[in-house]
Amino acid sequence: MGFMKLPEKFASGSTAFGCWLKVPSSVTAEIAAISGFDYVCIDMQHGFSDRNDLIPMLQAIQPHSPRAIVRVPSNDPSVIGWALDAGATGVIVPLVNSAEEAEKAVRACLYPSKGNRSMGPTRAERVFGEEYVQGVENSIQCLPMIETLDALNNLESILSVDGVDSIYVGPSDLSVNLGLPKGNNDGNPRFDEALERIVSSCEKYNVVPGIHANSLLADVRQQQGFRILTVVEDDGAMSTGFREVFNQVKS
Amino acid sequence: MGFMKLPEKFASGSTAFGCWLKVPSSVTAEIAAISGFDYVCIDMQHGFSDRNDLIPMLQAIQPHSPRAIVRVPSNDPSVIGWALDAGATGVIVPLVNSAEEAEKAVRACLYPSKGNRSMGPTRAERVFGEEYVQGVENSIQCLPMIETLDALNNLESILSVDGVDSIYVGPSDLSVNLGLPKGNNDGNPRFDEALERIVSSCEKYNVVPGIHANSLLADVRQQQGFRILTVVEDDGAMSTGFREVFNQVKS
Amino acid sequence: MGFMKLPEKFASGSTAFGCWLKVPSSVTAEIAAISGFDYVCIDMQHGFSDRNDLIPMLQAIQPHSPRAIVRVPSNDPSVIGWALDAGATGVIVPLVNSAEEAEKAVRACLYPSKGNRSMGPTRAERVFGEEYVQGVENSIQCLPMIETLDALNNLESILSVDGVDSIYVGPSDLSVNLGLPKGNNDGNPRFDEALERIVSSCEKYNVVPGIHANSLLADVRQQQGFRILTVVEDDGAMSTGFREVFNQVKS
Amino acid sequence: MGFMKLPEKFASGSTAFGCWLKVPSSVTAEIAAISGFDYVCIDMQHGFSDRNDLIPMLQAIQPHSPRAIVRVPSNDPSVIGWALDAGATGVIVPLVNSAEEAEKAVRACLYPSKGNRSMGPTRAERVFGEEYVQGVENSIQCLPMIETLDALNNLESILSVDGVDSIYVGPSDLSVNLGLPKGNNDGNPRFDEALERIVSSCEKYNVVPGIHANSLLADVRQQQGFRILTVVEDDGAMSTGFREVFNQVKS
Amino acid sequence: MGFMKLPEKFASGSTAFGCWLKVPSSVTAEIAAISGFDYVCIDMQHGFSDRNDLIPMLQAIQPHSPRAIVRVPSNDPSVIGWALDAGATGVIVPLVNSAEEAEKAVRACLYPSKGNRSMGPTRAERVFGEEYVQGVENSIQCLPMIETLDALNNLESILSVDGVDSIYVGPSDLSVNLGLPKGNNDGNPRFDEALERIVSSCEKYNVVPGIHANSLLADVRQQQGFRILTVVEDDGAMSTGFREVFNQVKS
Amino acid sequence: MGFMKLPEKFASGSTAFGCWLKVPSSVTAEIAAISGFDYVCIDMQHGFSDRNDLIPMLQAIQPHSPRAIVRVPSNDPSVIGWALDAGATGVIVPLVNSAEEAEKAVRACLYPSKGNRSMGPTRAERVFGEEYVQGVENSIQCLPMIETLDALNNLESILSVDGVDSIYVGPSDLSVNLGLPKGNNDGNPRFDEALERIVSSCEKYNVVPGIHANSLLADVRQQQGFRILTVVEDDGAMSTGFREVFNQVKS
Repeated sequence: MGFMKLPEKFASGSTAFGCWLKVPSSVTAEIAAISGFDYVCIDMQHGFSDRNDLIPMLQAIQPHSPRAIVRVPSNDPSVIGWALDAGATGVIVPLVNSAEEAEKAVRACLYPSKGNRSMGPTRAERVFGEEYVQGVENSIQCLPMIETLDALNNLESILSVDGVDSIYVGPSDLSVNLGLPKGNNDGNPRFDEALERIVSSCEKYNVVPGIHANSLLADVRQQQGFRILTVVEDDGAMSTGFREVFNQVKS
Repeated sequence: MGFMKLPEKFASGSTAFGCWLKVPSSVTAEIAAISGFDYVCIDMQHGFSDRNDLIPMLQAIQPHSPRAIVRVPSNDPSVIGWALDAGATGVIVPLVNSAEEAEKAVRACLYPSKGNRSMGPTRAERVFGEEYVQGVENSIQCLPMIETLDALNNLESILSVDGVDSIYVGPSDLSVNLGLPKGNNDGNPRFDEALERIVSSCEKYNVVPGIHANSLLADVRQQQGFRILTVVEDDGAMSTGFREVFNQVKS
Repeated sequence: MGFMKLPEKFASGSTAFGCWLKVPSSVTAEIAAISGFDYVCIDMQHGFSDRNDLIPMLQAIQPHSPRAIVRVPSNDPSVIGWALDAGATGVIVPLVNSAEEAEKAVRACLYPSKGNRSMGPTRAERVFGEEYVQGVENSIQCLPMIETLDALNNLESILSVDGVDSIYVGPSDLSVNLGLPKGNNDGNPRFDEALERIVSSCEKYNVVPGIHANSLLADVRQQQGFRILTVVEDDGAMSTGFREVFNQVKS
Repeated sequence: MGFMKLPEKFASGSTAFGCWLKVPSSVTAEIAAISGFDYVCIDMQHGFSDRNDLIPMLQAIQPHSPRAIVRVPSNDPSVIGWALDAGATGVIVPLVNSAEEAEKAVRACLYPSKGNRSMGPTRAERVFGEEYVQGVENSIQCLPMIETLDALNNLESILSVDGVDSIYVGPSDLSVNLGLPKGNNDGNPRFDEALERIVSSCEKYNVVPGIHANSLLADVRQQQGFRILTVVEDDGAMSTGFREVFNQVKS
Repeated sequence: MGFMKLPEKFASGSTAFGCWLKVPSSVTAEIAAISGFDYVCIDMQHGFSDRNDLIPMLQAIQPHSPRAIVRVPSNDPSVIGWALDAGATGVIVPLVNSAEEAEKAVRACLYPSKGNRSMGPTRAERVFGEEYVQGVENSIQCLPMIETLDALNNLESILSVDGVDSIYVGPSDLSVNLGLPKGNNDGNPRFDEALERIVSSCEKYNVVPGIHANSLLADVRQQQGFRILTVVEDDGAMSTGFREVFNQVKS
Repeated sequence: MGFMKLPEKFASGSTAFGCWLKVPSSVTAEIAAISGFDYVCIDMQHGFSDRNDLIPMLQAIQPHSPRAIVRVPSNDPSVIGWALDAGATGVIVPLVNSAEEAEKAVRACLYPSKGNRSMGPTRAERVFGEEYVQGVENSIQCLPMIETLDALNNLESILSVDGVDSIYVGPSDLSVNLGLPKGNNDGNPRFDEALERIVSSCEKYNVVPGIHANSLLADVRQQQGFRILTVVEDDGAMSTGFREVFNQVKS
């Protein structure tokens, strides 16, 4: 029993496959965590988990999954702090458009002098032990999202921010910002080039690129160079399962 | 807008396909209801919805699904009353072993003089309108579960109870009570004969037989004569979806 | 049952009467929605519904009421996005003091290229169907609140912001900012003139004016030109009812 | 500050007017308690408060109201114990049909040797102090409900049970059991005579009679001899308020 | 990661020290579980955890503590089943007064043919794996409580029930049933003899005796022969801590 | 019963001792409030109470404790307004680094013309009565936190902000910002001098200094001149209690 182990950060040598949680429930979170993924991510932006859903969900996830990540609803140090104090070992931060914004996100994760996170890791220290505060720099991962035209324009300066060692692409927002339909637009040169440029810039700055994908795109995204791949969402998996069964029994 | 319509009872002329909810969440309940099934059932026995989960789940289900049913945790008039007052239009009652127990379940659903349900249909009357109380007898369905040796022994007397116009088979409990492994045991004569006898007795007493099944068994169960078929569970659909994706991306 | 229909926006041709929800409960929200109002508004600023109260309340409201609106606690794109992703079809945004702030609110409601709302309408698309994203521009209403001296000073520039087709007056804040007691101050020239100027400016810019009122003021406000009228609050209705009964039985 | 005071029991010398809570919310419970009633009753049978709603609601009620009562969902010592351990100072017990059932209810409220309530008044002792256990017999009130034909038949024996010093009439259940429409049936001889007989028997056995009423019936019920009168329900007060406003503004 | 391990049953060779949870919170449950006790028990009788509190609390406890036990509110197979399906690995059952009642409790824990627990170990099988159903008989512990005069009178017959391999003494109820003040009454011959007789009878029937104690009594109870000792309660620990600090700083 | 009384502000003449709540529970909040402290503070930053936990916790605290304070998660007028509308009579605002930020915090607490708090004291007026709005200026306390190098540098300008009549020191953040280990660093000159300078500056500007302490430091801090002392935290008190008992019984 004893304390839990802080995770290793995502690395470019292998690909991490993850599961995405939009349903605010520790029951479904546990189902996800038990399924074996390299990370589970609680979505506070387009999923419906709020601050007080985090602890029960993290408690359900962490005994089973190596990494419990939270996509915060905005680049707000207060909610980033809450997620990390609750024990999340990484945050995905939406709509990071500049180096300044990336720095703000990173600094919200790190204690002084590297950052300005307020000291009070209530649950984190409880479950990871007294080494937690020292371990933050090597274990807590901050993934700024690259999903707007501004982010593309400022890509290299974002990637060169100290503490940005991985990023996460939101293909749906990226698409609509490129003037394309929401969703993935593989085959469209604007979309393809954007992904390509993100990956190659990441390589240049030694940053691990991640992206929101799905099971069908997993191979393609790996070949493109992405190493953090969300391949399934909870509500989508359930909804797809229901519709397949319904269609099968009704036919 | 106006009031919701009370459902028609299950009938033997067609087969109703249903979805089973073990996750206590109005988010997943809504996903189920939108998927098109003929009924959605909230499980309070082996699922984890308690009394105060029912209203939000029923509110999420009823705009989209023709029937919102509750499997109560036990044959207790107090919880049957709560489920119906909250607006459920049917209850599945576990472990009904005798005509007396079936009568107890039925009477908990009906107002005097047919039954002894206490008067106070707080939400039911709010959403179905003032006709609700009159409509109870024709619309609210009580499905005793047949799942024990006692129930098999007392089958005909259970089916002849006034107000029992449909029943529901729990194949897992039935199997273990027959000395078989839990789950479905198609092909095993004891299991097959039990199902057969249930269906034929139902026909004799003009009772619609239902059963907990899954998508693969849907055809078989229909051919056996079952007309109420639960074909998918929420946690199972999600878990299966996760594992399929995981295996696919990891290979 | 199929998908829900996106609402039509408020129009100046007729008056919409609404009900205001301060109690975080899907039970009372359903009572409000069934009562017939043209809109129901969940108050996240001075009422006590937080982000994770929204889905159950919207699920309770939307089957019965044509419009489910949320008054967000502040002009923050993250909470506006949450409310809309959860299925709200309008947001009332407090303390909008300038055209820039109005634009910020409007852009938080619209997808690129008109706005910068992040793409992920999780529940909205689930209940309104795939047409949702296209329908946002014509159905989702953003009502900046006019309630400060700055807002009065910048009134015309606020009303001329593209996408501002309705506004909402907070008479209590307006009053205290005018140096008057909180509440409505009909008869006081400063208050009366402010309302008059708001309505006439709205007419000029083809914007539908709304206001927080009560049942006694409904006629006056309509004659003044307001076309969106909140006429009752949940906690007020209950409290008034209790006190009337108490006084009656105690006398 | 210090501890709260245990209430005096209902007495026949004066009439206690009460408010009934069907909405599971500490916000509306507080509104009720502040309104001045002699008691507030949380309804766990036809209202929708479950066990874990009780503590927040009692915490909201007790600073403002002299008596916080719980109508339990059934005559079950386990739920009666929970309500009392949570700090309720009285229980209304539905569907008590015989002296044996009345005794069961009473004994669930009292510690040995008078009863068999299990010892563990967790919150009750916390807020009422160490005198709580001694005070139970004089302060905690058990009100069996008289609402069935069996109860009428066994009326005198129920009233003569030691510890039954007040009862509560459910007029709606009483009516349907008398073959009348649900609700109050004043003017109908069967209904009138039942009430009359209950009051006169109560006088004979020195038991305080209570009844579920409404504000219009308050005078009549007092004249009939009832001394505990529920005169308003939370959901009813709110719903009535909404409809009155709606009709007024729409006309 | 992988599945959790089913615990070993309490044995007479060593003493198990436990922590008792009355606060319905996964935050405090986790604090307890991390503290190192041999078991943690969620109290549904005099504590305030209801059915839907169990899963988050068990999720918080089980990664850290070898045994997560639930004291159910009554000897009701439906709530025993819920607790076990949720993953509890033992139940303490209050107010067991006879061999019949002990058998009822035991049978509610075991699957046919040994018992009549309904098949559907939703979370239990999820976290313990497919071996769970086979493992129930050797790992799931049923502890009837000995706390009434009837239980003392029927002690030997209770202890000889097949499946009763441990019991739990409630000293407070035992005391009041013996006509003593609530709490522990060490030194009083009636109390001392009752404990002595319980321990010696347990030895005779090879049953492990447990008791609700506190840290000061731990040594005495061990010397008396008890091998399952609850030594601290969550609300008590917190309250004591607060009062000690308050007295210290105020003096 | 009637309305609650607004508190007096902290004054320099005596020392106020407080209790800190990190567990989001009205059960533990009530235990704290009953223990006698001069204030109880709900922590929304490093504790885990979110907006919708506040009302039940305040309802549990306020009947027993003279002051119910909330440490908000950030200097955001929206959350400060929520806490005060819910009835908190003071807010501790983290990470206030300049006079501008202090002014922002103060103005979020006061109504125009002194501030810009939006008018809508829903619960506050309900429980404190109509005098609430007038009483805000004299009763509602805003405590900016001094915990960063910027705050130290801008100390005098922060203390001279109109409406800052008390401040609160976060020693853990202060320490790490001073390059010291987290926690208290008494004896280290940098730490000691910082505290000394804060107190002496407070005296100069007639501001009451407060600090997060513990029971062992209470005397020292009082001698240093602090007059608002948090001396215990809920999770700490419980955890300490558990570990002491565990070590005692295991040895």
